[in-house]
Amino acid sequence: MTNEAKPTVVVYGDGQLARMMQPAAAELDIHLRVLASSESNSAAQVIPDRVLGDYHDYDVLYDAAQGSDAVTFDHEHVPNEHLHALIDASFNVQPQPSALIHAQDKLVMREKLAELGVPVPRFKAIESVEDARAFSEDVHGQICLKARRGGYDGKGVWFPDPAEFESLVKELLDNDTPLVAEEKVALTRELSVLVARAPGGEVRAWPVAESVQRDGVCAEAIAPAPDLDPEMAEKAAGIGRTVAEKLGVTGVLAVELFAFDNNGIEDVSVNELAMRPHNTGHWTQDGCVTSQFEQHLRAVLDCPLGSTETLAPYTVMANVLGAPEDPEMPMRDRVREVMRTYPQAKIHLYGKDHRPGRKIGHVNVVGTDAEETRRIARTAAHFLVAAKWD
Amino acid sequence: MTNEAKPTVVVYGDGQLARMMQPAAAELDIHLRVLASSESNSAAQVIPDRVLGDYHDYDVLYDAAQGSDAVTFDHEHVPNEHLHALIDASFNVQPQPSALIHAQDKLVMREKLAELGVPVPRFKAIESVEDARAFSEDVHGQICLKARRGGYDGKGVWFPDPAEFESLVKELLDNDTPLVAEEKVALTRELSVLVARAPGGEVRAWPVAESVQRDGVCAEAIAPAPDLDPEMAEKAAGIGRTVAEKLGVTGVLAVELFAFDNNGIEDVSVNELAMRPHNTGHWTQDGCVTSQFEQHLRAVLDCPLGSTETLAPYTVMANVLGAPEDPEMPMRDRVREVMRTYPQAKIHLYGKDHRPGRKIGHVNVVGTDAEETRRIARTAAHFLVAAKWD
Repeated sequence: MTNEAKPTVVVYGDGQLARMMQPAAAELDIHLRVLASSESNSAAQVIPDRVLGDYHDYDVLYDAAQGSDAVTFDHEHVPNEHLHALIDASFNVQPQPSALIHAQDKLVMREKLAELGVPVPRFKAIESVEDARAFSEDVHGQICLKARRGGYDGKGVWFPDPAEFESLVKELLDNDTPLVAEEKVALTRELSVLVARAPGGEVRAWPVAESVQRDGVCAEAIAPAPDLDPEMAEKAAGIGRTVAEKLGVTGVLAVELFAFDNNGIEDVSVNELAMRPHNTGHWTQDGCVTSQFEQHLRAVLDCPLGSTETLAPYTVMANVLGAPEDPEMPMRDRVREVMRTYPQAKIHLYGKDHRPGRKIGHVNVVGTDAEETRRIARTAAHFLVAAKWD
Repeated sequence: MTNEAKPTVVVYGDGQLARMMQPAAAELDIHLRVLASSESNSAAQVIPDRVLGDYHDYDVLYDAAQGSDAVTFDHEHVPNEHLHALIDASFNVQPQPSALIHAQDKLVMREKLAELGVPVPRFKAIESVEDARAFSEDVHGQICLKARRGGYDGKGVWFPDPAEFESLVKELLDNDTPLVAEEKVALTRELSVLVARAPGGEVRAWPVAESVQRDGVCAEAIAPAPDLDPEMAEKAAGIGRTVAEKLGVTGVLAVELFAFDNNGIEDVSVNELAMRPHNTGHWTQDGCVTSQFEQHLRAVLDCPLGSTETLAPYTVMANVLGAPEDPEMPMRDRVREVMRTYPQAKIHLYGKDHRPGRKIGHVNVVGTDAEETRRIARTAAHFLVAAKWD
């Protein structure tokens, strides 16, 4: 296949998600072009065809998309109106902005899912202090307040005391932050269902994962979720499929779920959506026949989707999150130490400098025992930022 | 980790082997630089840091190696004397030319292995027609004649009739082709043992694979080799380890073995060596915790080696070899068709144009049944070049 004939996918965004599409693209001989804000950013380090520019600028988006078979994303922040304009200019944007809006606006998403009968916590648009007061009474002060747009990794999410709720709402509204409040779920754990959908309609789901959050940031994922009732696994997969189909999602869709106790039985409701490869799906790189990154590329090109079968009883992903202080030991020596101790650990680094709490990599480990596999992944990931064994 | 602090590996050679190092390099945040003869060549398509030049030219090699932590290869054709000069100039060349000579010169290799007691077929340096005549008598005309240097994929190998042997030898010697002859083995199958060795001495072996050659070119590999006696598997692994240690090999070493019937028991002797990732090891990409490409990078950087455990009972690799005529159906449509029919197939393409017999990709499939897995891999690979089902 000559360079000219290669399928070309343009990715808006230069983070680790775009970076991790490159191995799959190279294997399938898909030409990847990344729109990056700097040559030194994560994805731009490993993708030869990089266009530098600002994704808020329509002309930049337009130029970067030239010659593409599909345009896709590694984040949800490209202005929706620009995406509509690109479609009008005949570019093949996947997922389409009509789907993407549900991953961009938390109120729009909740309203749509409620309309579809997909379980979501009680919620309400908060446009005034009066709205806030009324909702707080309805849910007996069990409140989670969210910015409708732009939040991620715990940013834009608050769990206010009833006493401070109204003043917080006032402050945020005064700053022109559109808000939605939802009932705080007494969650027992968090689950994540990952599916991919191609424009032609094919949908495939991976096994449901359990994720562990620390300070609002994903710290670990294990798949399949241990001790998940097969009926509940099917319900979760059904939610993924429904959301993908009814919202017209293309590419990878992650549906983050709250699990809670419903009269002694585990039940779920939807927390958030993401329409791109997702942190809770990184385990698929080493634990599945087809990774979420390969599947995303196949889906946005409307290729038939790959098998989502697992390669091991359990796969655990542990995030490498920047420590409060970067240790003196150079990262390359930490990597060696982890390689020596855990020859089975799959280390994934994003080429990012240290910053406290920053996602700079992850470790995947496959195994037969859930707890032992967790322990290895967690210990390895911890060493990579702390330079000491936990 | 900033760009500056990344381990840097320079690869001389721009084929698919260098290309397939890039995914592992990106995951481990190893900076890869490739010395390529053209920007459009296989590896140069997917590696941003490419130096263009001719690997026969010492100055080119010297310039490309600047700032590297290790220098390695995707072929054996870099002049040995240049590698010695690079070492004198303090570059870290892995494998070292003192080891590499055994993969470059088939006579040197056979003499060394015989000296070490490693089983090789009877062989003799052929420097005259008289040498040829005497050897032919010794082995009752069962002759395989090889060029000492530069052969690969069946090139530089002849199986002459006794009648034409002497004239062939005369013609080749007149053309200044140094020769070695060996006794043609009545082989029952071919096996391949793949090991990696780090400069510090760590050695790890993958399970022995069975390979199938067609017209002197590797067509398929299956691992673990079906029905291989555990004692023979251990003997093969021992040969790999001995060769790696005694020859001081670093990085991946492939030892291609002849299997033959030894009084009713399967036995082996060494056919060829390669000191780099090898076609018979491509199955490790999708069938093992650590692929040969990741392991090669870890080894040449003297990092601890990764687990070589398998992820499935069997993994089959089938080469995508250019058909006599390139079918009209574009490759991207052939890829779609294979994806649709075999969602479990892992397609690997090298970004190479069609040429009859040329290695342009391979397909890996994992499975529980050896024959069924073989059938799927073979059928998928065939479709990718023939655009029809076998």
